[in-house]
Amino acid sequence: MTEMNRQFKLVARPVGMVKRSDFEFTSAPAPVPGPGQVLIRVLYVSLDPAMRGWMNEGRSYIPPVALGEVMRAGTAGKVVASNNPKFAVGDYVAGWGGVQDYVLSDGKDITKVDPRLAPLPVFLGTLGMPGMTAYFGLLEVGKPREGDTVVVSGAAGAVGTVVGQVAKIKGCRVVGIAGGPDKCRWIVDELGFDAAIDYKSQDVNKALREHCPKGVDVYFDNVGGDILDAALARMARHGRIVICGAISQYNNTTPVKGPSNYLSLLVNRASMTGMVVMDYTDRFGEAVREMAGWMKAGRLKTREDIVDGLETFPETLLMLFKGENTGKLLIKVADA
Amino acid sequence: MTEMNRQFKLVARPVGMVKRSDFEFTSAPAPVPGPGQVLIRVLYVSLDPAMRGWMNEGRSYIPPVALGEVMRAGTAGKVVASNNPKFAVGDYVAGWGGVQDYVLSDGKDITKVDPRLAPLPVFLGTLGMPGMTAYFGLLEVGKPREGDTVVVSGAAGAVGTVVGQVAKIKGCRVVGIAGGPDKCRWIVDELGFDAAIDYKSQDVNKALREHCPKGVDVYFDNVGGDILDAALARMARHGRIVICGAISQYNNTTPVKGPSNYLSLLVNRASMTGMVVMDYTDRFGEAVREMAGWMKAGRLKTREDIVDGLETFPETLLMLFKGENTGKLLIKVADA
Repeated sequence: MTEMNRQFKLVARPVGMVKRSDFEFTSAPAPVPGPGQVLIRVLYVSLDPAMRGWMNEGRSYIPPVALGEVMRAGTAGKVVASNNPKFAVGDYVAGWGGVQDYVLSDGKDITKVDPRLAPLPVFLGTLGMPGMTAYFGLLEVGKPREGDTVVVSGAAGAVGTVVGQVAKIKGCRVVGIAGGPDKCRWIVDELGFDAAIDYKSQDVNKALREHCPKGVDVYFDNVGGDILDAALARMARHGRIVICGAISQYNNTTPVKGPSNYLSLLVNRASMTGMVVMDYTDRFGEAVREMAGWMKAGRLKTREDIVDGLETFPETLLMLFKGENTGKLLIKVADA
Repeated sequence: MTEMNRQFKLVARPVGMVKRSDFEFTSAPAPVPGPGQVLIRVLYVSLDPAMRGWMNEGRSYIPPVALGEVMRAGTAGKVVASNNPKFAVGDYVAGWGGVQDYVLSDGKDITKVDPRLAPLPVFLGTLGMPGMTAYFGLLEVGKPREGDTVVVSGAAGAVGTVVGQVAKIKGCRVVGIAGGPDKCRWIVDELGFDAAIDYKSQDVNKALREHCPKGVDVYFDNVGGDILDAALARMARHGRIVICGAISQYNNTTPVKGPSNYLSLLVNRASMTGMVVMDYTDRFGEAVREMAGWMKAGRLKTREDIVDGLETFPETLLMLFKGENTGKLLIKVADA
């Protein structure tokens, strides 16, 4: 084994936007699996907004990435050496491999994926963490009922696209908030959303009034900031807000902007509830099966935005915060 | 009938703190009941933080008081003339009589109260709207479980005192946040709270860390602002925040301060839910019976802060926003 393992290690806590100098990009020989271990060739690295939070010091739902550690990331790859009877060379697996070419595993933190079910990148998107987040966040926390008006922000992203399509499957009226005419056209024309609001060119408050005349029953929030406030102002009686993320606030150097309109919760007897996808790990299997069925039936479409080359990591990550990706953002590290 | 009816009519939408000039104080002969009507002599006027909201223009859970209208207020009084077979002269009733000496009713918006069950002022406090708000907000929205840590702000007020005592009855550990050493001593020594935090002299963040080492399971918020943020920062996994009011924000001339720490909802899978007491009207009877039982057993104590004279209304109302009352604030209008 003379393959080299390139790694992005976090070496500084970013202030504001992430920059290349927050990482060290190193190269060393790929490790050799010990007893019970497998060596995985990383093929795709998942880029997710939550990664920004993991770079910060402080108590959260998961410990921060330590300085000097390989940056945490979801990955899909192929077993290239195995001392573990449960995995054979050639198996495809998903897990938390990190931003690197090769990773060792004891087999407990990886899951075999079936590439006949869907292309490998889909296991980092709709059939991976973002899809699970959308599925459980919408259905378990948002609890949409047939006929409800569901609004989702970050609607053209990996989570938002699934939230909107699953809400449609459940018989809801769906309004997506996204940035720019291309994304807005795509979620309506291709994904079947009922309407789209372009927050970059439209007054979101006004557009929500127009598209949600009976108010918003479920608002799935990926962005925070002014858009959360606009949704709060339009909540229907007993409406539910799912707090999934706050991408507009992750790179703040000033304190997070709290939602000034939170007293709308009182007026409308509404609720705002946080969710973390890891809480539903036991049920991922059932969700993957149901979503794969919807995909097969053409009711759930996926799109991946794939950038080539591990070495592009810091700049590719920034695409998320600039709103430059459509669908699930991934880095392709190597051919399968 | 030559009695005079004094009335406070709202004539201006207050900017910031309410002032006397926002009202017109008039006097006219008391009205005469028509067919089916009763005339009520108002004996006590309830002063509640929510009144500040009713003075503002705009969509809320209840229409605003119109300019020129008698200021809306809860009242307890005595029937002095009746053309309604359901009410006899001498009956005691509670209702929305407004800030005035006399009020007509068709009998549908008033409830007979039994002065043998409790003194009349208690029907505007613990056995009235504030008590109902505390009871249903805590039990139905907060859903405390035995052993939970419950924190309540405005802890020495009409709602807070009941929230804390009912939480104790339900087997919770209770921490109250109030202003000043007298209130803090009172809620611990007399009402049986486990601890009190004086927000005027203590660092609330630090004190919550100290008094809630396992985090806050239920936070009942009457105040908003920085105290809401401090509670958010200490929420336990799956904690519940009940949004009942935001007295710190009602007289703002700048936008409401949204809770900067709202992403703690995500980290802790916690929720923040608004409540309006009117939604539970059908169940007030059951709550009054249970609470009266606790009062009789000495497990639920009440305290009223009674100011004499209808004419003091604007200044007495301000006591709420200055935190000058302990227990339920009322105006005594006339002797029973």
